[in-house]
Amino acid sequence: MSQDWTVVAAAKKAKQQALIPKEWLLSDLPPQSTLDVSEFPDTCGLLTEEEIRITKSATGALLSNLAKGEWSSVQVTTAFYKRAIIAQQLTNCLTEIFVERALARAVELDEHLKETGKPVGPLHGLPISLKDQINIKGIESCMGYVSWIGKDADHNAVLVDILESAGAIPFVKTNIPQTLMWPETFNHVFGRTCNPYNRSLTSGGSSGGEGALVALRGSPIGVGSDIGGSVRIPSAFCGTYGLRPSYGRVPYAGCVNSMEGQDSIPSVLGPLSNDIAGIKSFVKAVVDAKPWLKDPLAVRKRWNEEEYNLVDHGNGKDLCFAILWDDGDTVPHPPVLRGLETVKKALLAAGHNVIDWKPLKHVEIYRTLRDIWGAGAEEDYNTVAMLSGEPVISTMLPEEQPVVAASEWFRPSESVSAYQLWQYQKKKRDLRQEYLRYWEETTAATGTGRPVDAIISPVAAYAAPPHGMNKSANYTMVWNLLDYAALVIPVSKVNQAIDVPRPRNEFYSDADRLLWQSYNPETYNNAPIAIQVVGRTLEEEAVIAMSEIVDNALKSSKGDS
Amino acid sequence: MSQDWTVVAAAKKAKQQALIPKEWLLSDLPPQSTLDVSEFPDTCGLLTEEEIRITKSATGALLSNLAKGEWSSVQVTTAFYKRAIIAQQLTNCLTEIFVERALARAVELDEHLKETGKPVGPLHGLPISLKDQINIKGIESCMGYVSWIGKDADHNAVLVDILESAGAIPFVKTNIPQTLMWPETFNHVFGRTCNPYNRSLTSGGSSGGEGALVALRGSPIGVGSDIGGSVRIPSAFCGTYGLRPSYGRVPYAGCVNSMEGQDSIPSVLGPLSNDIAGIKSFVKAVVDAKPWLKDPLAVRKRWNEEEYNLVDHGNGKDLCFAILWDDGDTVPHPPVLRGLETVKKALLAAGHNVIDWKPLKHVEIYRTLRDIWGAGAEEDYNTVAMLSGEPVISTMLPEEQPVVAASEWFRPSESVSAYQLWQYQKKKRDLRQEYLRYWEETTAATGTGRPVDAIISPVAAYAAPPHGMNKSANYTMVWNLLDYAALVIPVSKVNQAIDVPRPRNEFYSDADRLLWQSYNPETYNNAPIAIQVVGRTLEEEAVIAMSEIVDNALKSSKGDS
Repeated sequence: MSQDWTVVAAAKKAKQQALIPKEWLLSDLPPQSTLDVSEFPDTCGLLTEEEIRITKSATGALLSNLAKGEWSSVQVTTAFYKRAIIAQQLTNCLTEIFVERALARAVELDEHLKETGKPVGPLHGLPISLKDQINIKGIESCMGYVSWIGKDADHNAVLVDILESAGAIPFVKTNIPQTLMWPETFNHVFGRTCNPYNRSLTSGGSSGGEGALVALRGSPIGVGSDIGGSVRIPSAFCGTYGLRPSYGRVPYAGCVNSMEGQDSIPSVLGPLSNDIAGIKSFVKAVVDAKPWLKDPLAVRKRWNEEEYNLVDHGNGKDLCFAILWDDGDTVPHPPVLRGLETVKKALLAAGHNVIDWKPLKHVEIYRTLRDIWGAGAEEDYNTVAMLSGEPVISTMLPEEQPVVAASEWFRPSESVSAYQLWQYQKKKRDLRQEYLRYWEETTAATGTGRPVDAIISPVAAYAAPPHGMNKSANYTMVWNLLDYAALVIPVSKVNQAIDVPRPRNEFYSDADRLLWQSYNPETYNNAPIAIQVVGRTLEEEAVIAMSEIVDNALKSSKGDS
Repeated sequence: MSQDWTVVAAAKKAKQQALIPKEWLLSDLPPQSTLDVSEFPDTCGLLTEEEIRITKSATGALLSNLAKGEWSSVQVTTAFYKRAIIAQQLTNCLTEIFVERALARAVELDEHLKETGKPVGPLHGLPISLKDQINIKGIESCMGYVSWIGKDADHNAVLVDILESAGAIPFVKTNIPQTLMWPETFNHVFGRTCNPYNRSLTSGGSSGGEGALVALRGSPIGVGSDIGGSVRIPSAFCGTYGLRPSYGRVPYAGCVNSMEGQDSIPSVLGPLSNDIAGIKSFVKAVVDAKPWLKDPLAVRKRWNEEEYNLVDHGNGKDLCFAILWDDGDTVPHPPVLRGLETVKKALLAAGHNVIDWKPLKHVEIYRTLRDIWGAGAEEDYNTVAMLSGEPVISTMLPEEQPVVAASEWFRPSESVSAYQLWQYQKKKRDLRQEYLRYWEETTAATGTGRPVDAIISPVAAYAAPPHGMNKSANYTMVWNLLDYAALVIPVSKVNQAIDVPRPRNEFYSDADRLLWQSYNPETYNNAPIAIQVVGRTLEEEAVIAMSEIVDNALKSSKGDS
């Protein structure tokens, strides 16, 4: 390398800043001591009334107004772009900015609709944000690695081709942690993304840029990736909806990534949005485009409307949900427990059954995941980082290059032989087999004649914690190993008056005790509270439908109270 | 180990022999010099006229007569069992024999039909043979490893549960090579399986027992496994139909296997039969049983009747097939080329389009497969073999423990690190991506407005070769890496008068020249000639339907000539 890596990183960051239209730069930004900036976009004066109305619309209304030409794509794209730039100034959520290119495409789409009277596709005119690793031809995907700066992608990711054919406009790329293998968002190039509801807290990761951006309504649909919770953790921490689809349901081909070739517990792409309609529109549009004709790892499974109508779940009547209160290793903080309790109450009020889900070997599952990813992770990270000389990050704590121990789960385990990796993978297969049998056997407990329809699970043991303190992704990772589809639903926000510490005398472990001690309501105040609805492998349609049921139950129950 | 492994192996073999009912032992077996024993079951006198009629019935007729009770399951199972025992005495195709157990189940099924008037399921009363590795509770699955002798399986494989629920009767298990990673069939416990059309030739492998058994009509449907051709090679060499489904379409859970945990290019289970109806009945029955509720790796994809009706292939009119004449590495022997020519003529006569398929990077694909499997194979084989002290087999040549070099492809490559394995797996992903794009781009050449509908490919560069001489599985392995569904169709038999050597002056390589020199018509006389119809990943329905079209075209064209 000819240049110091810090110089290269700083130049890239300066270039990013220069790409923001001057008139969208805000001089009166709130001071860092202002923690909750969620209302700032509406009040800062940069957005017109109409732009506020557009960016706060439900996804269904947006799509229908775009398809009918009631709002032009230029209007909608401009509104979201401005709001995204506000979000950037508040939370540092973006990586790549390309206003002219996005608006030029919006003009084309508007002309097409005018000329033909027909929308280009189901996502006509809609701006969509993409996690940095999702390649757009002609734009960089440095993924927070200094060594990858300066290389424009020479192709679109398959997903980008599909989204563009569906009429969508990729309009910004969003921030990530170096390696993507952290549940927070910080790297040496773009820096740290913070939580719009409380900037002293993390936005989560690795799709943390998406979480902050979508939460601030700077994007109607964002695309993240999830290998161990990387869509769901930012969704939960930032209060958006977010789906982790099964392996291969959404095409991944053509993205950059860490640990390429690790195909045993792979990363998947999935959407974040402010409503479930956004999630559904995205998945249906992508699956209807037959992604298996463009990505060999995409599963040949059409969108199944019968499954969406819950044919395998009693047509959606009298469902039985099971709540995972804790994983047998750590008990969640009071706000998370209140979230689960709220959902239980709402589901019972809506006439569904709710039972408890007892965890099966979750700790073994965590270990197996770590063994598989760790088998070659260190070599992978070092190989890329050494090209520029930048250090591999060992903590997400905010101090400059702090020398502290990495958390247990995110430091790669020791490199092993391929044969040893196969033994871990065999263990994984056996755990999946056991879990499937276990789920099927719940038929005896549901009273519906069916096994449990979906699990309601915490997304983390806590709401968004302070930067550097998100040291576990256990409550999400477990479903990655099992390859279960899971959809995050926001439930409430931490209220320091209500979410007081709950006394406990017994603990699963020292870690559990430490976690309990670490809770204090002031720290977490205003952080979103969420749950995830967990279904079976390749059951995206049913998981979306059951999530709608849960979400509607929550909304009705809020209306009641 | 307390006992010499050869003693343990011999005891197991003697026990097997003792399980054959005395009255089914033939005293007048043809001498070893009689090569073609394919007609012997009909003429040996052990089978009644009706048993001959039953065992020579089309699968459709068998299933319908069983469902209507016109033939009892006891009749049908007895007929196939007797014929399987004849096949065993001719070709050494069986491992586990359990006559009483199978007939007891047949009695139950007959009673059920009598009492309820309804068949138990779509395979009611049908005996089905299983490759040795497919666990049946209470029966051994030693898989040719001495160290695994004496352990009854404590569970059914998921497939066995499904087949039994569908009314089928697993009735024999069939022979395999040690490790399963050879395209021939020999192990230290059960010995060698030979080809019923010419016993000096191999039955192929690793499902070689199934190939010989089904070819002799000792089983109406057999189940093999295919990691690199192990269903298709025996099907082709023995003249049966055989399907390699995509990863996860047929549940594999609960089988024993080699290289467990190697889940990048995994083995799949697939059926062999004497007609395509047998293949279809099996796949539809298995998929309709929702295997994803029993095996977490089974794909949630229902049997799709629209895809069977070729909705993605112009509804089956004016298809465009592409013929792979050679792989750019070795040119097939004259009988194989005649097979391809015959298919081309038949398809043209039936009104379809036929173009050439130019291979894309097949040699790189072979190398990548070998690298991935080889990454931990040697450790895997040694670990199991060392338990009994039996040697890991290094050749399929018939001499007793010959010390010769293993063929290039079947000797494991050097063990590597997990990180290195990931690099191979990344290469694999890239090759799959390139091949998919390449296939899609054939739209320009087909004249149908669609890409090529299916590839017609050799199954091997030769018909069944002499024992120990099947040194490549290239023409099948390529489709395993790509995960394409492929169905083998018998076309003809080697005729030493017609299939004379074809002069060649140019060769791809020394290996190609050696292969060309190795052909002489007398050696291969009477060996079956076959092709495979290759479709896309998870396109089993369409591949079955297109194979019916190819098969019908061949039958019509034979009728014409």
